[in-house]
Amino acid sequence: MKKTLASLPFLLLFPLLVAQSGKVFDNLSMPSKILKMDRKYAVYLPPDYETSGRSYPVLYLLHGGGDDHTGWVQFGEVQHIADRAIGEGTATPMIIVMPDANTGRRGYTNSAKGDWLYEDFFFQEFMPHVEKTYRIKADKHYRAVAGLSMGGHGSFIFALHHPELFAAACPLSAATGPKTRDELRFDASEGVTETQKEAYFKKYSVLDMIASIPDEVIKSTKPEDRAKRVRWYIDCGDDDFLYEGNALVHIAMRQKGIAHEYRVRDGIHNWVYWRAALPRVLEFVTMDFHQF
Amino acid sequence: MKKTLASLPFLLLFPLLVAQSGKVFDNLSMPSKILKMDRKYAVYLPPDYETSGRSYPVLYLLHGGGDDHTGWVQFGEVQHIADRAIGEGTATPMIIVMPDANTGRRGYTNSAKGDWLYEDFFFQEFMPHVEKTYRIKADKHYRAVAGLSMGGHGSFIFALHHPELFAAACPLSAATGPKTRDELRFDASEGVTETQKEAYFKKYSVLDMIASIPDEVIKSTKPEDRAKRVRWYIDCGDDDFLYEGNALVHIAMRQKGIAHEYRVRDGIHNWVYWRAALPRVLEFVTMDFHQF
Amino acid sequence: MKKTLASLPFLLLFPLLVAQSGKVFDNLSMPSKILKMDRKYAVYLPPDYETSGRSYPVLYLLHGGGDDHTGWVQFGEVQHIADRAIGEGTATPMIIVMPDANTGRRGYTNSAKGDWLYEDFFFQEFMPHVEKTYRIKADKHYRAVAGLSMGGHGSFIFALHHPELFAAACPLSAATGPKTRDELRFDASEGVTETQKEAYFKKYSVLDMIASIPDEVIKSTKPEDRAKRVRWYIDCGDDDFLYEGNALVHIAMRQKGIAHEYRVRDGIHNWVYWRAALPRVLEFVTMDFHQF
Amino acid sequence: MKKTLASLPFLLLFPLLVAQSGKVFDNLSMPSKILKMDRKYAVYLPPDYETSGRSYPVLYLLHGGGDDHTGWVQFGEVQHIADRAIGEGTATPMIIVMPDANTGRRGYTNSAKGDWLYEDFFFQEFMPHVEKTYRIKADKHYRAVAGLSMGGHGSFIFALHHPELFAAACPLSAATGPKTRDELRFDASEGVTETQKEAYFKKYSVLDMIASIPDEVIKSTKPEDRAKRVRWYIDCGDDDFLYEGNALVHIAMRQKGIAHEYRVRDGIHNWVYWRAALPRVLEFVTMDFHQF
Repeated sequence: MKKTLASLPFLLLFPLLVAQSGKVFDNLSMPSKILKMDRKYAVYLPPDYETSGRSYPVLYLLHGGGDDHTGWVQFGEVQHIADRAIGEGTATPMIIVMPDANTGRRGYTNSAKGDWLYEDFFFQEFMPHVEKTYRIKADKHYRAVAGLSMGGHGSFIFALHHPELFAAACPLSAATGPKTRDELRFDASEGVTETQKEAYFKKYSVLDMIASIPDEVIKSTKPEDRAKRVRWYIDCGDDDFLYEGNALVHIAMRQKGIAHEYRVRDGIHNWVYWRAALPRVLEFVTMDFHQF
Repeated sequence: MKKTLASLPFLLLFPLLVAQSGKVFDNLSMPSKILKMDRKYAVYLPPDYETSGRSYPVLYLLHGGGDDHTGWVQFGEVQHIADRAIGEGTATPMIIVMPDANTGRRGYTNSAKGDWLYEDFFFQEFMPHVEKTYRIKADKHYRAVAGLSMGGHGSFIFALHHPELFAAACPLSAATGPKTRDELRFDASEGVTETQKEAYFKKYSVLDMIASIPDEVIKSTKPEDRAKRVRWYIDCGDDDFLYEGNALVHIAMRQKGIAHEYRVRDGIHNWVYWRAALPRVLEFVTMDFHQF
Repeated sequence: MKKTLASLPFLLLFPLLVAQSGKVFDNLSMPSKILKMDRKYAVYLPPDYETSGRSYPVLYLLHGGGDDHTGWVQFGEVQHIADRAIGEGTATPMIIVMPDANTGRRGYTNSAKGDWLYEDFFFQEFMPHVEKTYRIKADKHYRAVAGLSMGGHGSFIFALHHPELFAAACPLSAATGPKTRDELRFDASEGVTETQKEAYFKKYSVLDMIASIPDEVIKSTKPEDRAKRVRWYIDCGDDDFLYEGNALVHIAMRQKGIAHEYRVRDGIHNWVYWRAALPRVLEFVTMDFHQF
Repeated sequence: MKKTLASLPFLLLFPLLVAQSGKVFDNLSMPSKILKMDRKYAVYLPPDYETSGRSYPVLYLLHGGGDDHTGWVQFGEVQHIADRAIGEGTATPMIIVMPDANTGRRGYTNSAKGDWLYEDFFFQEFMPHVEKTYRIKADKHYRAVAGLSMGGHGSFIFALHHPELFAAACPLSAATGPKTRDELRFDASEGVTETQKEAYFKKYSVLDMIASIPDEVIKSTKPEDRAKRVRWYIDCGDDDFLYEGNALVHIAMRQKGIAHEYRVRDGIHNWVYWRAALPRVLEFVTMDFHQF
């Protein structure tokens, strides 16, 4: 193959090799009835989006705490990295959607008292809106979620709650939620009951959710159970302060027999780590989008 | 698929040949009430500025004495160098703004008698105008200043007077202002009083300003004090006639415990030196724009 | 002269083709009084060993269970990998010593009953013999240990028992010994007493040894305590059957505040993984041999 | 030229391109009458030393405090770096001599009381011995001195005391001796008189020595005065604790009109910095050995 390509005239290769640019919009918004406000988002459209008539797979890419929907654009270099990965052929052209979860509330979750329903907003309003607005293949096999820190927690809970919606999930330097019920603290002023606390723990502790996956789903060869499984790519630096939860998730998944990729690279909880992770995430979800 | 692409990396040297271009405009202007005249400026817009909908960080890039806002464009090769750095991924896409301070007056300062207020113009009129005209992230974390010679002095004073506005400052072959009060000379015809002279010295001597930074700001871990700190990149050739001021600033900053980068490369006070400095400046400010 | 040479760098890709070779001997042996038999070993001598008159740092490289001193030579490609790393400058010339621990007994440990003393042999006979036979810098700062699986356990215990002898230790896909006393099983026929079992557990459980390191040694800035610390590089594949012990060592070291590098790459318990690990090990121990 | 070489048959280039190895001996010694003991040293002989019959220029390369003559061999990678520089043509083949000044006394100086005369040993015994033992061109034009930290001080004082002996001097991260007489402290038990202290200060303060160089030597065009000048390459990291002395030497030399190269790179007082400096040192002294 090498020889065949090497002997092609210089110009014939050119169309393949010209680096092309996708487009990023970082100041979009949509109204939410559930949250009673407008919510912002950013989107990356692949280089050929405007010239083609085809539809694309979608990656939801979630930001961390204290940041917003522009984080992956500005600090994460999503355009440069996606353009390059698509140009080099390690990633297939895809649409990348970055919602704003900078609300001062509990990240990507519904609150324990049910007075703030971000997760409901995401699945009932945001995802439908986005997948209607852009030419997105609205199907589990072409949908993935990834995110960092608080957005890593979002990736875990979205994919664990809705394995029928996501082919792959890539939590990076992820918060993994409370390890034990005792770790879960609410301010007295919030007025959360014990029942609500218990329900919140069950719903948002990643370790508890993993422990609750029925073995028959994991081992099953029935096609309908395949829809309940997600491909996992978990990555957390050896010097990250969230190292422990991710190491314990790795152990828990191994012990349950849940297939997953786990990486520990040299690094801390910062954008140097996440920019280096993004090309691997794009390559990993492309394996799903390509259906192997 | 993998095998088909396996032979590509070798060929991927070519895309560098068709790196995308930003745009430079070098004959823009705006009216100034403070200076009672129009002031010119030049701007560099990154390659994806027109096709994306996103906002960008900004670098103010200041020219030297006897030059004007076109210096970095013509002699500094700002477009070529920024395009290349962005294409290679060592710099994030940013807007570069080059104001004209070629006034025959005292560079980027307000005059001692207060009859010429360039610094006021910059902060009260120019910066607001530019940041309204272009899609600029108007926030300390996305704003930097750099400049050469007289513009190095401008970088020092702008960032020392307004650390809350700049994440990073990069004085190149910088004038550092008067070392001592005696060094500061005004022509008798200017009619500058002793009080005005003293105030001018305090305001524009870089060494004096560094000496005046309170230790508690430098050592503080309080978030509000972080806003008073700037990341510094100081670079001056070993054969530059301005070597001494820069070496003394290095010593003063070390002795005060002010973190900074200092470089002395082989060279004199010329554009060969500054063109070689610019890629490092773009990479250095990108570290801020990326939040590490 | 400059001009003549200016065209060379492009051509300088070629010297890699004629990188110089070290030498491997894989059938050496020495008599052991402690073990009452001859023990074999292999050695790698760097390319310049025979032509120079200098002395070298030493890396002890330990094989896994069921293998012997020829494993790193045949399967691990130690010569090819070390020659290349030294040629490229990522590793400093060093002597690599591979002892044979293929005894059908308990790896690199002394047995619980004290009737088989491999660890004693290593420190009292093997290391002195080797360091007298070759031009080795016999000093902690120039000595490191690495190994895979059972040899990873060997790396842990040698460096934990003798931090004064090793600058760095690199356990790869390491066995970490018994997690709990209950996990430690001896065959009834061995006749191991409870006291012997307890002593063996304390001596060879990596997690227990880490828990026993005094905090004052870890945090101390006293020079004599620095001699009690070792630089760690721990690497284990996400699909390795020994993943859990290594993840728990990572957590235990983080919680104790013991500095260490931890890597989890894609892979299982095989030579593909270890050959990919070896260049990183050589680079990591070179950092010690270079004193930063 | 490029084209001419590019079209040469592959094999014809080979003799030029095969990387060759020099030889290092790090355990040599010679008797000293002055110091009343044997003193060790290491030597690097260039790749063609044994096959040629020619003589070579010499670089004396001095270690820092707490280290010995093996430092540049083990930590400084002198063989790898010199082989590569010679192979690439950036350095001419030269002999590199590394004396051991690890004496627990005052580095490369004669002591204030005159009871320890290292500097005398170097010039009266060591240099003559080495230049008789190896095929060295014993002439100022082919002799240079470089060193780090305490060995940087050695480079300064050897070249300032004997400009007639050295073409070039390269102090790296250099100690520059006492800035003022007050900084110079002797233990009371040493019994140093005020006169001895004054003489020691005059002899070993780099700033004082520079201040004492007569202007007529610096500006002179007389051939005999050229023999009193040395080419200087001074390099010290911006985060090195010895930054100040080097910055002040730069200022002092500029103010006196003494030509010199000065570099400040990113770095601290460690071998990472010095290994990066060594190729530049070899290139710099080669300019002398080539006589431009």
